Amino acid sequence: MSDRTENAKRVLAAQTIELPSWAFGNSGTRFKVFAQHGVPRDPFEKLADAAQVNQYTGAAGSVALHIPWDKVDDYEALAAHAADLGIRIGTINSNTFQDDDYMLGSVCHPDPAVRRKATAHLLECVDIMDATGSTDLKLWFADGTNYPGQDSIADRQDRLAEVLAEVYARLGDHQRLLLEYKLFEPSFYTMDVPDWGTAYAHCLKLGPKAQVVIDTGHHAPGTNIEFIVAMLLREGKLGGFDFNSRFYADDDLMVGSADPFQLFRIMHELALRGVVGPDSGIAYMLDQCHNIEPKIPGQIRSVMNVQEATAKALLVDTVALSAAQAAGDVLGANAVLMDAYNTDVRSLLAELRGEQGLDADPMAAYAASGYAEKIKADRQGGQAAGWGA
Amino acid sequence: MSDRTENAKRVLAAQTIELPSWAFGNSGTRFKVFAQHGVPRDPFEKLADAAQVNQYTGAAGSVALHIPWDKVDDYEALAAHAADLGIRIGTINSNTFQDDDYMLGSVCHPDPAVRRKATAHLLECVDIMDATGSTDLKLWFADGTNYPGQDSIADRQDRLAEVLAEVYARLGDHQRLLLEYKLFEPSFYTMDVPDWGTAYAHCLKLGPKAQVVIDTGHHAPGTNIEFIVAMLLREGKLGGFDFNSRFYADDDLMVGSADPFQLFRIMHELALRGVVGPDSGIAYMLDQCHNIEPKIPGQIRSVMNVQEATAKALLVDTVALSAAQAAGDVLGANAVLMDAYNTDVRSLLAELRGEQGLDADPMAAYAASGYAEKIKADRQGGQAAGWGA
Amino acid sequence: MSDRTENAKRVLAAQTIELPSWAFGNSGTRFKVFAQHGVPRDPFEKLADAAQVNQYTGAAGSVALHIPWDKVDDYEALAAHAADLGIRIGTINSNTFQDDDYMLGSVCHPDPAVRRKATAHLLECVDIMDATGSTDLKLWFADGTNYPGQDSIADRQDRLAEVLAEVYARLGDHQRLLLEYKLFEPSFYTMDVPDWGTAYAHCLKLGPKAQVVIDTGHHAPGTNIEFIVAMLLREGKLGGFDFNSRFYADDDLMVGSADPFQLFRIMHELALRGVVGPDSGIAYMLDQCHNIEPKIPGQIRSVMNVQEATAKALLVDTVALSAAQAAGDVLGANAVLMDAYNTDVRSLLAELRGEQGLDADPMAAYAASGYAEKIKADRQGGQAAGWGA
Amino acid sequence: MSDRTENAKRVLAAQTIELPSWAFGNSGTRFKVFAQHGVPRDPFEKLADAAQVNQYTGAAGSVALHIPWDKVDDYEALAAHAADLGIRIGTINSNTFQDDDYMLGSVCHPDPAVRRKATAHLLECVDIMDATGSTDLKLWFADGTNYPGQDSIADRQDRLAEVLAEVYARLGDHQRLLLEYKLFEPSFYTMDVPDWGTAYAHCLKLGPKAQVVIDTGHHAPGTNIEFIVAMLLREGKLGGFDFNSRFYADDDLMVGSADPFQLFRIMHELALRGVVGPDSGIAYMLDQCHNIEPKIPGQIRSVMNVQEATAKALLVDTVALSAAQAAGDVLGANAVLMDAYNTDVRSLLAELRGEQGLDADPMAAYAASGYAEKIKADRQGGQAAGWGA
Repeated sequence: MSDRTENAKRVLAAQTIELPSWAFGNSGTRFKVFAQHGVPRDPFEKLADAAQVNQYTGAAGSVALHIPWDKVDDYEALAAHAADLGIRIGTINSNTFQDDDYMLGSVCHPDPAVRRKATAHLLECVDIMDATGSTDLKLWFADGTNYPGQDSIADRQDRLAEVLAEVYARLGDHQRLLLEYKLFEPSFYTMDVPDWGTAYAHCLKLGPKAQVVIDTGHHAPGTNIEFIVAMLLREGKLGGFDFNSRFYADDDLMVGSADPFQLFRIMHELALRGVVGPDSGIAYMLDQCHNIEPKIPGQIRSVMNVQEATAKALLVDTVALSAAQAAGDVLGANAVLMDAYNTDVRSLLAELRGEQGLDADPMAAYAASGYAEKIKADRQGGQAAGWGA
Repeated sequence: MSDRTENAKRVLAAQTIELPSWAFGNSGTRFKVFAQHGVPRDPFEKLADAAQVNQYTGAAGSVALHIPWDKVDDYEALAAHAADLGIRIGTINSNTFQDDDYMLGSVCHPDPAVRRKATAHLLECVDIMDATGSTDLKLWFADGTNYPGQDSIADRQDRLAEVLAEVYARLGDHQRLLLEYKLFEPSFYTMDVPDWGTAYAHCLKLGPKAQVVIDTGHHAPGTNIEFIVAMLLREGKLGGFDFNSRFYADDDLMVGSADPFQLFRIMHELALRGVVGPDSGIAYMLDQCHNIEPKIPGQIRSVMNVQEATAKALLVDTVALSAAQAAGDVLGANAVLMDAYNTDVRSLLAELRGEQGLDADPMAAYAASGYAEKIKADRQGGQAAGWGA
Repeated sequence: MSDRTENAKRVLAAQTIELPSWAFGNSGTRFKVFAQHGVPRDPFEKLADAAQVNQYTGAAGSVALHIPWDKVDDYEALAAHAADLGIRIGTINSNTFQDDDYMLGSVCHPDPAVRRKATAHLLECVDIMDATGSTDLKLWFADGTNYPGQDSIADRQDRLAEVLAEVYARLGDHQRLLLEYKLFEPSFYTMDVPDWGTAYAHCLKLGPKAQVVIDTGHHAPGTNIEFIVAMLLREGKLGGFDFNSRFYADDDLMVGSADPFQLFRIMHELALRGVVGPDSGIAYMLDQCHNIEPKIPGQIRSVMNVQEATAKALLVDTVALSAAQAAGDVLGANAVLMDAYNTDVRSLLAELRGEQGLDADPMAAYAASGYAEKIKADRQGGQAAGWGA
Repeated sequence: MSDRTENAKRVLAAQTIELPSWAFGNSGTRFKVFAQHGVPRDPFEKLADAAQVNQYTGAAGSVALHIPWDKVDDYEALAAHAADLGIRIGTINSNTFQDDDYMLGSVCHPDPAVRRKATAHLLECVDIMDATGSTDLKLWFADGTNYPGQDSIADRQDRLAEVLAEVYARLGDHQRLLLEYKLFEPSFYTMDVPDWGTAYAHCLKLGPKAQVVIDTGHHAPGTNIEFIVAMLLREGKLGGFDFNSRFYADDDLMVGSADPFQLFRIMHELALRGVVGPDSGIAYMLDQCHNIEPKIPGQIRSVMNVQEATAKALLVDTVALSAAQAAGDVLGANAVLMDAYNTDVRSLLAELRGEQGLDADPMAAYAASGYAEKIKADRQGGQAAGWGA
């Protein structure tokens, strides 16, 4: 096990999980957004909170922005602020679902004027990428319909393809477009990109700079997500993850909290192909809503959950696994996988943190830091950030 | 068929669907509430809109209130306003999910002070029932947990039982408590009343004035709702329905729009027992969100959908059905049911409307009335009603 | 409506639904196969039964074979028998799941010898196509795994691709390969072709003679099947349908019996593109198990259900629909669709049957024919056909 | 942790998991039963195999019988055989789904003669209980319908209630009836006991000797099983478990193999109430099908999985958990639970086995024993046991 442990520590030391700026703002359900105290009031404060997560985990060095929620006048200043905090700006996320014009869709809307407006926003996001040095544009479209007959399924695909092609053409040499799919919500009858097959079909036509993003909460019940991971890896079309957990729908709970074994199986597929690291071309991001738990600890815990699942995945005895698989030894092969999953990797990670000059217990270290109390005291007045601000 | 047609018309002439006051206000998803023009600004205007639905369908003579969204100083005045409009105030719906204190629950909250506050609200709702003459208190609790371990499942049941008992004791002779269940949302790991079994167990202990409400959108995938209808009828515990449609979760779409055959099967179970009418002790209510369609026509269409499903259910040849069932004639029995379902009942309903002095086409009649234009013009300024107001 | 009605009748007159030979044999669940009397004992008798369905519906002129269940010494003789009965042999279905060697898979099995055996069977199926004049090879693979780690997801894809390429290369000029997907069963952790995306990705690489088959019972809960129809049509990769109904899993009930509105929506997507007819390149097949109902009437009823859904789809006022969609009229567009769905098309179909010289009521005509009694009397002795024979 | 560890070992030392006799026979899906070598040919050989599981785990001292699969002439002899092997006969399982008469149901069949036959079988099972000394009669009914309208949902409930009452009246003082529910399969439209609410309602009316059995694979997607555990415990109506795993439907995979965290959460609810032990009145049984893996090791592994989940559940720091819950500390309470789940308990169990005189590694010890080779050599000829024999 020793070699695997050493390798695991080396890979884990380099692992980077991108944080979503919006996880630090208020969020909720359609029933209620419960405001929390000390929540950031602007993108600069969001970055400050994100930097806390990185400070205690050492594994969260970049932050995704959401436009227009994170619009600022000077993105270079924002990027510099990030650098000062020891982090960097990562993926740029577009938003074409919160303007009144988007009631019946954005890039798939029957009205060309609305599509034009949405396209302009997407192009603006690429401008922002140029300014921040971001390489990834993440596109998730709330587009869809609520009632059968409401709009033409096929026509909406044509409109989508046309907009995607225009945005794709605008990408710089080192930029790419990540297309996310989602089964349902906020549209209930059809989503215009409901599954990986649809996202894959579009990315294939766009070209090599278009890849698919898997949000772990965006699937129908019974979907085997690690299978999709394997398929997209095989096709060279896996661009990244939006990690979170769900019991039923897109619950956006902390990753690893609902089905830690599933998270392990996903990381296993990735570890098998050696694409866990930051130079793999796969963006590992969180996309969560801490509706009832404090946000910074929620993010720390989530990063730790990904680390633990990754550590277990890296401990799989792949030689023994392949041998058992080749022999058709069902129980033996399963046992190799379960041995790794059943291992308590928390001491390994504590040891790694020690070597990295970090506290062995990020949750406790953050709690002891006084940061939570400080932001509650300092951030008086202003408008707390949330979805929409 | 003639006798069945005559009977169908007689039952349909008496059928009453209760409208939810909140269907006339703005609603949306957690992603966005798209505001519509001409939306009511207070409960009086909501009643006025509801009266339009009744005016054109003749089948929507009562309106459910939601407290505190529909709080007024003078409920007698509100009831009188309703009477002037030819309708009446029906079920009182409580709300224990929109106060900041309720982040971790209301009647199941670990803190007794929060439970006390929630209980006080429920008792206040009974006071309002006394003032409005309402007989039904509908209780839906957003209570639950998002994470395993967050709270004790069993303790929360004890707290729930205690509050329910106190509210039950407060009910007047002609009042009852309708307990609604929901699988998930806004809580994601557990809901404290997730299924009919839980609601039934509580109602059984409370006594005869406690009954279960079925919201057609609140079940796990694959659940056979008409089976639950049959079970609750058999146990004497079916108190009412919150009708709506869903493709995936609690989509709150127009009833009959996602699976009209399911709605027919539900109405068939009820028609079989002769409990479709207003004196059946079963409250037939809509609970919908018209997020992207105009609200008054959305309600009219929904009432018509229930009427059509009911008409088909009333046309089932129950003698032939029973005979085929008794004979074990699978295809024959199914064919009897499908014959009724496949019948186009729109002319029957048009005829009935003519006999009632109504326009044969409620949608067209409302559209021609100018009411939509009038409220858009008149309702300038003020705060549009929505969830929370 | 008159023009639409005329067009509907013209299209319906040409519509052909392919019957599965195995629907006439015994079938059941893992719990029990309930044998029925008069069941065919060989492929010739299966064709005779299938011809009955065509005789009374006029819309079921071809029969799919399943190899080895329908293996005969002389396929030319079988084809001639079909021609004598007024029908023809259609799709050839392979079977790589009932040999003991296939316990851990067939074309994806870790052992190359097993894959070789499976490939040989597939090639043999193409030989049979040559003999019967069939143009379509339908491939459904039971392959998959039951336990995480049991086998490599990615390696199994490579094996699958290799076998498919070999079979594809063997196809004649007028032959094609239809790849079917299925979410689960008989494998429970992974199926090797679980969704349309996987089938599509393989077909895309194989070339124009490879297309995807949609079995309406093979999806996760909440999947919008008509969306997949629209996507595959858009990509030119929709090869055909295996029609059946399900409430929960792959129930293989009569098509249109569980969710007739869904069937209508599927036919609507197809009618919109004008690909309902026999020259559309889309194979419309039934794939059902009449576990508890008599088989020939079960097939007749299923064909009628497809006809009724098609008739309704053909009655959609597409001009009004497009206009409402373009105007963003949510309720109006939905109403156009629902108007067609709510129409009782049974008299239209009865009329059409009259014009075709058929009885207006196929179920009654078959029942009156005495065929059921005759086969019960005649088919004594021998081994009743079923899955596996 | 020391006290908790000691307590855990004490409880684990007494834990008993009942094995299903049918797990040692051949099983499969509707597509294929893959026969394995060395499979038992009669109930005596099944008991011999079951004794192996107990020999290496020390935690599987009883075996459930399935009638008529395990019918013998002399049940006293069978019980004596079990005693010789160091085990005992446990629950008696009825079977009313494999006779041709049961095509449309058994206890809910429209024909009273079929119901009479089914009832007689159930009463015979109680006779067998008297002979074997079994205390539990487990009733699972395959009854249901495939098509809407096929039979009356309500009438079937009446018939069910009548049969249950007759069987209940026949129970001896120390006997009880355990009623199992299942969402779907083998019936697809309705099952007559589809959910815990239905089973609970019937058991409540029957009396204290009737309780509900939870099969972990018998729920709709998204169902929170530990919630049902808590509810039934609260109502005094939890009679036992049929443990297995599923990814999608009733897959009958090894318990703990699909979602080990769910199994832990279930055991946590039970450990919290102190009802894990053999005197708790809760029957802990396996109900699995080892379709592709060897059966005895499959059972050993399953017992170990339950032991590991139980061990983790017993290690939960319930004082800290309650404190965090009472304080509304969402992340803290969840962390207490996850700390126990993330603990590697395999060394604890190895230690316990050492103290019990068992090999630390049951799987390896069985593999080394030569038993598998022996039964393959010895059990030549005869009819291998399976579903139906």
